[in-house]
Amino acid sequence: MNYKMIRYTLGFILAFEAAFMIVPLLTALIYKEFFEFWMFLISAIICLAIGRLLIWKKPKNTTLYAKEGFIICSLCWIIISIFGAVPFVLTGAIPNVVDAIFETVSGFTTTGSSILTSISTLPRSVLIWRSFTHWVGGMGVLVFVMAFLPLAGGQNMHIMKAESPGPEVSKFVPKVRDTALILYGIYFGLTVMCFIAYLISGFDFYEALCNAFSTAGTGGFSIRDDSFASVTPAQQWVAITFMLLFAVNFNSYYLILRRKFKDAFNAEVRVFIIIVLVAIFAITVNISLHREAIGQFTSLGEEIRHAAFYVAALISTTGLATVDYNIWPALSHIVLMLALFMGACAGSTGGGFKVSRILILLKGMRNEIQKAIHPRQVKRITMDKKPVDGEVVRNVNAFFVAYAFILVIGVCLISLDGKDILTNVTAVMTALSNVGPGLSQIGPVNNFAHFSDFSKIILSLLMLAGRLELFPMLILFSPTTYKNKGF
Amino acid sequence: MNYKMIRYTLGFILAFEAAFMIVPLLTALIYKEFFEFWMFLISAIICLAIGRLLIWKKPKNTTLYAKEGFIICSLCWIIISIFGAVPFVLTGAIPNVVDAIFETVSGFTTTGSSILTSISTLPRSVLIWRSFTHWVGGMGVLVFVMAFLPLAGGQNMHIMKAESPGPEVSKFVPKVRDTALILYGIYFGLTVMCFIAYLISGFDFYEALCNAFSTAGTGGFSIRDDSFASVTPAQQWVAITFMLLFAVNFNSYYLILRRKFKDAFNAEVRVFIIIVLVAIFAITVNISLHREAIGQFTSLGEEIRHAAFYVAALISTTGLATVDYNIWPALSHIVLMLALFMGACAGSTGGGFKVSRILILLKGMRNEIQKAIHPRQVKRITMDKKPVDGEVVRNVNAFFVAYAFILVIGVCLISLDGKDILTNVTAVMTALSNVGPGLSQIGPVNNFAHFSDFSKIILSLLMLAGRLELFPMLILFSPTTYKNKGF
Repeated sequence: MNYKMIRYTLGFILAFEAAFMIVPLLTALIYKEFFEFWMFLISAIICLAIGRLLIWKKPKNTTLYAKEGFIICSLCWIIISIFGAVPFVLTGAIPNVVDAIFETVSGFTTTGSSILTSISTLPRSVLIWRSFTHWVGGMGVLVFVMAFLPLAGGQNMHIMKAESPGPEVSKFVPKVRDTALILYGIYFGLTVMCFIAYLISGFDFYEALCNAFSTAGTGGFSIRDDSFASVTPAQQWVAITFMLLFAVNFNSYYLILRRKFKDAFNAEVRVFIIIVLVAIFAITVNISLHREAIGQFTSLGEEIRHAAFYVAALISTTGLATVDYNIWPALSHIVLMLALFMGACAGSTGGGFKVSRILILLKGMRNEIQKAIHPRQVKRITMDKKPVDGEVVRNVNAFFVAYAFILVIGVCLISLDGKDILTNVTAVMTALSNVGPGLSQIGPVNNFAHFSDFSKIILSLLMLAGRLELFPMLILFSPTTYKNKGF
Repeated sequence: MNYKMIRYTLGFILAFEAAFMIVPLLTALIYKEFFEFWMFLISAIICLAIGRLLIWKKPKNTTLYAKEGFIICSLCWIIISIFGAVPFVLTGAIPNVVDAIFETVSGFTTTGSSILTSISTLPRSVLIWRSFTHWVGGMGVLVFVMAFLPLAGGQNMHIMKAESPGPEVSKFVPKVRDTALILYGIYFGLTVMCFIAYLISGFDFYEALCNAFSTAGTGGFSIRDDSFASVTPAQQWVAITFMLLFAVNFNSYYLILRRKFKDAFNAEVRVFIIIVLVAIFAITVNISLHREAIGQFTSLGEEIRHAAFYVAALISTTGLATVDYNIWPALSHIVLMLALFMGACAGSTGGGFKVSRILILLKGMRNEIQKAIHPRQVKRITMDKKPVDGEVVRNVNAFFVAYAFILVIGVCLISLDGKDILTNVTAVMTALSNVGPGLSQIGPVNNFAHFSDFSKIILSLLMLAGRLELFPMLILFSPTTYKNKGF
């Protein structure tokens, strides 16, 4: 294990985190929140000082293998979450350390679960830091850092692999750095578009910026106590549109920019669009038939809008909220939870199991059934007419098992709090999928304040596990990682 | 597709079903239930007549391929369920046809879910038929029939493979028929032991017999309205013991009889025993800590007994009941639902996902993680120090996906009834695992009468899918099965 290189990379991460704090620092200056300004400055100096200490000596051996990639990835996210929580504690916005870490993990992992009961009263610099963590976490901190880190070429692919969402990392261009820069370009461009759309829809500059950060990262933090419930329908439609846009594989945008439209609408994107439409349709019909019992809506238009809002919010794993869907009928709950579990396309900022993984699993199942009927036939799984590597298929199956395994362990641990089973299961699911709300006691109008500190730590680890797609965290906590030497 | 052979086999099945009705016929005579006697006689004659018609002409080509094996298997279970429901309707015990079919499917699949609200008032011949279906279904009707069917040797392996629980069918002896006879010998012997134990514990002859049928098949039907709640602790302990014994791979008993003790306690059995003990311990501690809030128990002894009862009832997928566990705390619910999902050992009469499958999945996950760390290492999954065939591993993964897929479809369909999500999810799980009770509205003291006819049909299909381990039913309903000709 190249511990020196791990230390060195973590140092860089902390230096970057200090740089990220420029955003709340500027906000504090603009809105004359001087106490908060000093607290953010202290936090930034702490990050910078410790970061500087860690990168004092550049290691001679900069070789990184897969193992180090996973470890760096896990540790990096833990470290930025802990240091990102410092301003919350120092400003007194979230005095409890566990709460502050939970909130920061929720931010960087783009989950958007909050322990705050009153949001709108907090200083603007604190709120923008909270939303900005979503934007930073959305595309992956490490990929960002990697793009700037002076390393031997090629080896940082391991880190990108560990951090990027989805079963396969495709490089459009030979160099990791160039790929990362293209992705960041698309991310930045889409965020600007989202910000402008929010501005046009009537939000002021500050709120539009916060919401753009939150939507772009598919996070879900809002600066209002009721999230998106009290905004105009037009503003809700802007949110719906951009939540869905950020849930699409960024490769597709790159392909659209290069005018390869046919390749852009690949199987995953097509299935994603179909699922979104079917889910919106199913929920609209379901809540429309129970209009009287629900008592939230008076017209079909409203029902379509709120159905679309929640399908977009949960499938993109953003988790913004309008009305309380807890009182909707069972079918809507199931469709929403399926959307939450499945999540977005691979290679987007969204979390969850990913559409492409589900496609690979279902195709694998179909092949097995075919094989049971025709034992001598040999069929390979294909995606977009290209055969999927057997290793990827095995990896996706293992991912499914790991998801179930972590879900079970998580639910057992959380259930020690004594809450009902629906709260426990959906809390773990929403954490693993980096969504935000769940059902029962963690519905869209509730928050996570009522959990014990122990559960909050477990949920924080689950959010990290979900963001890093399970394996890096499993590897970090697996004793065998530290046993074997060598490659 | 060899349709003639399918017809021929189904004819045999019906003839056997008529023969099974000797049990309720005799009971009716003994207890002087003459009306029921005639109704069972009419039912038996119907089965016999239609069966005889179907086997009128023996097909020239008796070749059975895998595809036919699956189709025969699915159709056979549907047919015996439909004809097994005839006496329920004719005697007026269950006048509604859908209800009667649900109850019979629940019987043959050894699920034990009931739509009856008052059980103890029914005629004894009807009740023993109900319990006897468990015993018949427990070991597999087809394997039984195959043991007697005059077929070319070897080919019926396909049918046995389709019907037998677990990822691998091991033949101890070269011929399928001999293997089947050994298994039936063990089944019969254990049932007699169970019957005698119930007799000694204080049940009368009739009730001991009904309970022995129900326990041996890991079914769950009882002849009392409150299942096992009003019996003595000793009788409950007998039930606990035999539920667990019938959940163990029957191969192990064969190996014990042949004094191969070390082979008998293989990895699956050892893990099963550990899981049972851990589950009982966890639930006992959990309900003991909440003794006041639950208000059902006064001593630790009681708590251990009821914890053990429900762990045994759900992990063996029997589903007998004592107190209402719906009011137990969340952790107990989760442990019980995990037991219900996992189910028994492969090659037992119990249902569920099976311990060995879970072991293979977890070992596969561990290998993938190892591989992520050390990409150049090649490791194979082993069970009891023997490598597991790659095809079996793939099949188990596909089974997991199929389980999740069917669960999702089932829950969506059931949720149209408008019940809460916990009822829907656990109803589908308990049907797929062939257990009986679930949570919320289908708890151990509830029944399935309140579901719509549509949901009852869906649940019946799910019980059949669960009993036949998913693939035969998926193949029966897959359009491609009937498209391709040839092998």
